[in-house]
Parts: sequence; structure tokens; C-alpha cells
Amino acid sequence: MALLKVFDPCAICLLCLVLSASELCNGGITGNFLRKEYSPDMPLDSDVFQVPPGYNAPQQIAGFLNHDRGVIISWITPDEPGSDTVLYWSENSKHKNRAEGIFVRYKFFNYTSGYIHHCTIKNLEYNTKYMYEIGIGYTIRRFWFKTPPRTGPAVPYTFGLIGDLGQTHDSNVTLTYYESNPEKGKTVLFLGDLSYSNDYPFHDNTRWDTWGRFLERNAAYQPWIWTAGNHELDFVLNLYEETTPFKPYMHRYYVPYASSHSTSPLWYSIKRGSAYLIVLSSYSAYGKSTPQYKWLRDELPKVDRSTTPWLIVLMHCPIYTSNWHHFMEGETMRVVFESWFVKYKVDVVFSGHVHAYERSKRISNIAYNIMNGMCTPVDDQSAPVYITIGDGGNHDGPAIGMVEPQPSFSAYREASFGHGIFDIKSRTHAYFSWHRNQDGYAVEADSFWFHNSYWNPLGKSFVAQY
Amino acid sequence: MALLKVFDPCAICLLCLVLSASELCNGGITGNFLRKEYSPDMPLDSDVFQVPPGYNAPQQIAGFLNHDRGVIISWITPDEPGSDTVLYWSENSKHKNRAEGIFVRYKFFNYTSGYIHHCTIKNLEYNTKYMYEIGIGYTIRRFWFKTPPRTGPAVPYTFGLIGDLGQTHDSNVTLTYYESNPEKGKTVLFLGDLSYSNDYPFHDNTRWDTWGRFLERNAAYQPWIWTAGNHELDFVLNLYEETTPFKPYMHRYYVPYASSHSTSPLWYSIKRGSAYLIVLSSYSAYGKSTPQYKWLRDELPKVDRSTTPWLIVLMHCPIYTSNWHHFMEGETMRVVFESWFVKYKVDVVFSGHVHAYERSKRISNIAYNIMNGMCTPVDDQSAPVYITIGDGGNHDGPAIGMVEPQPSFSAYREASFGHGIFDIKSRTHAYFSWHRNQDGYAVEADSFWFHNSYWNPLGKSFVAQY
Repeated sequence: MALLKVFDPCAICLLCLVLSASELCNGGITGNFLRKEYSPDMPLDSDVFQVPPGYNAPQQIAGFLNHDRGVIISWITPDEPGSDTVLYWSENSKHKNRAEGIFVRYKFFNYTSGYIHHCTIKNLEYNTKYMYEIGIGYTIRRFWFKTPPRTGPAVPYTFGLIGDLGQTHDSNVTLTYYESNPEKGKTVLFLGDLSYSNDYPFHDNTRWDTWGRFLERNAAYQPWIWTAGNHELDFVLNLYEETTPFKPYMHRYYVPYASSHSTSPLWYSIKRGSAYLIVLSSYSAYGKSTPQYKWLRDELPKVDRSTTPWLIVLMHCPIYTSNWHHFMEGETMRVVFESWFVKYKVDVVFSGHVHAYERSKRISNIAYNIMNGMCTPVDDQSAPVYITIGDGGNHDGPAIGMVEPQPSFSAYREASFGHGIFDIKSRTHAYFSWHRNQDGYAVEADSFWFHNSYWNPLGKSFVAQY
Repeated sequence: MALLKVFDPCAICLLCLVLSASELCNGGITGNFLRKEYSPDMPLDSDVFQVPPGYNAPQQIAGFLNHDRGVIISWITPDEPGSDTVLYWSENSKHKNRAEGIFVRYKFFNYTSGYIHHCTIKNLEYNTKYMYEIGIGYTIRRFWFKTPPRTGPAVPYTFGLIGDLGQTHDSNVTLTYYESNPEKGKTVLFLGDLSYSNDYPFHDNTRWDTWGRFLERNAAYQPWIWTAGNHELDFVLNLYEETTPFKPYMHRYYVPYASSHSTSPLWYSIKRGSAYLIVLSSYSAYGKSTPQYKWLRDELPKVDRSTTPWLIVLMHCPIYTSNWHHFMEGETMRVVFESWFVKYKVDVVFSGHVHAYERSKRISNIAYNIMNGMCTPVDDQSAPVYITIGDGGNHDGPAIGMVEPQPSFSAYREASFGHGIFDIKSRTHAYFSWHRNQDGYAVEADSFWFHNSYWNPLGKSFVAQY
């Protein structure tokens, strides 16, 4: 299947059709590479955690492209507030523009954060490389980012996929593999569980800082789309001072939720290239009548597949997994949202949480009504493919306990570390590949040609019974 | 079955056993009284909404007994803050004690609340009638309440059950029926959806005030245990000023959540007589790792059935209903919590939301694991009885569309208005009755003898398969 990559997929539709259909008929595969060992977090004096030199030098830089023509730059100054200003200019210009941000701080037990700056830059040119400087007044640091092309139905775009990263030596390998992948993701879709600092005594938030410094080498140059995981809850039940869920995460990472009429940074949407990305929160309320439920109910009909053919959902907890690690945990969200995913022909749902890789077949399980016994997933070409990539390499190690025999809904699964690439080729085709850390940078351990569910579906749809 | 009430149930265990067992074998009953008509909200100048005379006179008085020996008194002064003081004395004493509270206010669109006072009184005597006065300094009003007996395994206690009340003429009938019921509930377990003010333009919060004045005639004298319903969300998606869920509700009604180590007033527990009451929130997060999930996980093992034999759960959205109104909405919470309810032998789960009455058999549906097809409820004597009492009489009217044929899990259902009484007789027996508004005060349209699930179970238990 990987050979198809060298062809223009639009020219080989018939071949795709045959190959993909035959793939549907196959039984699932369990990868025979089983990674049992894992590494601890990198030590505090590790190179990748190094504090940049200079008084009050900005660190932990991360960018988030919020609209087609906007960007949020976030950074932290350790010593004093310093400047909230970002100076920026396009590669071919000498005129430096100026944008003003804000800063926030927070306390967590005995930890006090640095000065966390967030600055939104608007009205950028499409498809343009911009230089930017922060730390104005003391230690100036310079980075760059590239704005995406104008949103449109035939815009190719490549997303990287990383989840449950943490800050171990394996995490570093995963990031290095992603950075070295010749497919070159332009935006990372991050699937939740960032720093794992909450596993330390008192949720040691200095591990949020080391994580931010570790990530800077990538996140300062390309946007990361954030999904909140259970490790972002940072909630301590019996110590009443820290009972506000998501406190460090929401102070550190800003997302443009209001622009998609969301009322919480934990769920929002964003358009990028020919994709419409919907980020959901597995750890907020989603029952009927709740804010997240109402938002998604109103959001899905807004997706115009003639402008953004690819409809992608991100959530931390997978709603299909055949791994005993977090088995059935996504069931509570599945029974609420799955019928919408089918109705609106979501192309793919990416999740993390389970520390392994898994790709489902296109199946749905939406006929059940407590009296009818119809609770077995069925083939459904209107259903998304569910892909779990919780395999960033964090200190919990891989999830090697799998449900046996492999359920019929599972197409490929493997308890290794790695990252994914979702490469949108056209309105009708996208190529997904999963890259195991133990192979060469360009080796695909699993891959799948996506036929767009709206424009290029394969086979029959299944419709809910009630 | 109702005849049993005149006997001491402990003396007739064998008879109970035979009768209850036979009841289990019966098919379900659909009550033949179908109430189709319903009334609008009572007009603003209705007698029951009358503002008490006198400058800044306290209004909307409500009490909430927080521990065995404490009470929260809440009231609103309309003109100025006035005093936060409650003067109180036991019936046989002439010495007035003093407790100091606080006041809060809130805005909602163009509405500004009065001064909402909350005052906690501690260290009261058990089983004692107390007089209390509020409005000190201007217009003083006097009420009374009775403290409950000391918690213990053989303490009889009678709860009233009301849900989805609203403020229609029917609501008034329901409250009057409850007040006139010779069984005399000592505490109301309120199952969510209070004022329905959010159905008015801009969620007209003056309808929260009218509801508070309507309720005062009862709530100033006996505690109401609050459960939040969807109408308490008061969330307006596209008007960004009012996007904080539960704002009016949480300002107006204080509950002692911290004393049960909860971190939110939306879920908490309280002991009363021989009952352990657990209040859950259908409209907050409850997925694994969330605060509510962790709280309930830690709370259930704390229940000591030798002190509080009766374990009662309250939540707004029922997890079993055979009414098309909100059918399957509770499924998302069921798949998370049901196995715990069975494991810990919850006696009964009371809900509202569906504007009708329904009582389930003891059934569970916890064997399912997405591959095994085991998703049909089975008889299970460790499972709670699920009782829906969303029939307070609000302006939405009764929910008359029922799933046909009546599912096997449904023991009795009827689309009428009414209230319930849960009358704990002893460690082993409690008598539940449901009272239809259209009958005489003392007439039971449905009734059920509860055998305590921990001390006096009937028949076999079912254990989850995974």
C-alpha cells in the first residue's frame, strides 16, 4: 500500500478503490514489535531542558495559528514581566511590525509560575514566512514561522500527530523522529497529556517548565493544536487549594476558542488548509444540554465540506480501543457523540491516552436503544476511522496488554512508541502513516489511504435506528 | 401491597418476601391516568408570589440542614444588604443565639439580584424545634425548623420527593399535596429543575425570585436537598456575557459540599437519619479522572451501612426510563456509574427530568464490553430501584409519549403530576409511595416496599464480567 504514495492518488482512484476495499475485508493486524522497556524522565540538567542564556530571556516559546491569518505566540520570562511585545516581519520585508500581548501568572502549591505571555498577531499574509522577536528590552530571541495557505478545498496540507508525549528519552526520540520525517508536518495535532508533571509530588510544575523548554525547538516554529488530556486536569482532590481543573494547562497554552463560538478553551474548532479540525474535551461535561454538547451540535452543521472537505476530530480518550489500558473509558462519550460523527461523515477521529498505536476500520455502533440488543459495531462507510496515537513515549511506558482475540473493529494495533502523519493530497484523498520510533525516519509501520468520507466514500452507510 | 403499611414490616418479613418476589415476576404496569392538559406559569401578581410587607423584608427563605447538627439558612433582601444575622433559639429556651452569615449578589443580562444571604448555624441539639429570626434591623420575620434525630441505623425518617417543579398552578397543587400528605416528609429531596426561569426571554431572573417566594412556605420550615437539573445550567451560548453554567442556582442555593470533601456544590453527600444521600450532577463532567468521578469513587466506600443502612442516590437525568422524553439521555452516565451502584448496593436512585412517574425493577446492564453483545438489562437484586419523579407540574407539561411495549425493566409508569414519599421504617424496610395530584391527599397511585439492599436483599446478585 505504501507504494501508492509515489503516484498522484487522484489518477489512480480505481486502484485505490480495489485496494482499500480489499483491506476492509482483511482481519486486523497486531504489530509484532512489542516494546516493553521504557525510559524515565530526562534529568533536570538535560541539554534539552536548558534555560536560554541572558537576563530574563524568553523561554518555552510556542505558536498557535489561530485563524488563517493570525497567530498566538506564547512564551515565559522567568525573572520579571518584561515586555509583552512581539516584533515580526515577513521574510522579504525590513519593516518590523509590533503586536502587544498580555501576561498571566499562577500559583500551584508552593510553585509560582514565571510571567506567561500570550500575544495575538492578526492580518498576516498567507503562505508567508515571518520572522519574530520576543524579549524586547532585555534578552531578545528570534524565531520564525510560516503562515498556512488560504483555506480551500484543494489545498494540500500535512499534519503531524503526537500524543501523550511527556519528557523522557523516548519523548525526545519521538520528537526527533517527527522533526526528521521527510514528509514534514506543518502543524502538529497534539492529542493530550503534555508534561506529566502531575505525576510528581505536589504536581511539581517545574516539570511544566522543562517540558516547555524541551518542546520549544519545534513549537516555536510551527503551530501545535492542543487537546487537553487527563494529565492536564491537575486536580488534587484532598488538598483544597488546587481544585480548579486544568489550571497550569490553561494558563500556559492559549487557543482561539472564542473565534469558533466556543466558551471554553477545552473545545474549539479551527480551519487549516482543506481541513476542519474539531477539538473536544474528554474531561469536561458533554451530556445533553451541557455547553460542550450544545457547541458541537451547532458546530457540525457549520462545516462546509465544499470549502474544507476533511473533517477531523481530536479528543484525548479514544472511543474505540482494543487495549486493556483505558478499555471502555471512551464509552461514555461514544454514546453521546458517535451518531453525530456518522451523520456528519467525520473522516477521522484522532485520540491519545492509550500508550500504543491503533487504527480502526470504519465501524459504528449507534443502533442500540437498551431494549434491542443491537450493540455490536458494524461496518459503516459513513463512520470515521478511529486512530489512537498515545505513543509519544512518556514515563508510564507502553500499554502492552491487548484484548484477545483482536476485535473485528481493529485494523492495526501495536504497543510501540511513534508518531503519525496525515497528509492531505486533494479533496478526495489523504495518506496516513504511522512511524515507529525503532525504524528509520521514513519507514511506515502502518499506513492507510483515506478516501474522503463526503466526496469519495467507499461502500454503504449505516443509519441509526432511532 | 398498600395494606402492609399498617403492620410493622419487621414483623412480617416472610409475607413481604412472598409479595415482593411475586411482584418481581409481574409484567410492568402503565398507569391508565394520562394527563394531557397542563397549566402555564402562575401570573406575577399571584398570591403565592407575594412580596412580604415591610422595608427590606427578607424573602425566599430556604433552609438546608447540612450536618446532623447544622443548618444553612438562605434568604434575600431586596432593597439593601441589611443584616446577615440569624437569631435562633430552641422552643423551650428564651435565650436567643446569634449566627453571622454572608451575602452575595449576581448580575444576569439586565437583571441584578437582591442581596442573597447565607448563614450557617452549627452545634444545634438533635431532634429539637428551633425558632429563628432574620431581617434584623428592619423588618424581622420569624420561622422555625426542626433538627433531625441523631444519625443511626434504626432511625425512622421520611423524605418527600419532588422534581421539575416550576411555578405553574400545577406546581402549586403538587406542593400543596405534599404539604397535606399525612405521611409528613421531614426533608424534601428535590430532583432538579427548580424555577424554569431560563425559558423566559433573557432567562428572566425575576422568575427565580417568584419561585423562591412560592417555595418559602415550605422551604423556610423544612430542608430541601438540592440536585441541579438542566434548567439550572442557565447557559447562553451565543451571548458571551452569560456563559458560566449554574450561575443563578449556585448563588441562590448553598449546599454543604465541602463537608463531604466535594469540591463542587453540584455533587455532595449528606447523612440524614438512617440514610446516606449522594447527590450527583448530570450536567458536569463524570468521565474517568474527572473531579466528580474521583469524588464518587472515593465516597462510596466510605458509606458505613451499619450506621446508615439506606444508600440513596439523587441525580436529575434518569439512567433508566421508558419514556421517549429524554430517552437514552442518561446512558452516558449509566455506562460510567452503574457498576458502582451495583457493587455498593445502592437502594434507590431518584431522578427527575422526564415529566412523568416511573419505577423500575431491580435490574442492571453492566456486562457489556463492546465485543460481547451483552447489553440487555438483567434482573439483579444488587441493583438499585430507579425511580423517576419529574412530575412536579412545570409549564412544559407531562411527557405522554411512552416506548411501547413497556420494557421489561419498567415496573410502573404514568404520565401524571405528583410527588413521592420515601418512608424509612427500620434498618431493613422502607415504604415508598407515589401520590398523583388528581387523587385525595392520602391516595397512593403506586407503592413499593423496599427491602434494604445491604441488610435484607431479595434473591441473587449479578456481578460485572469485566
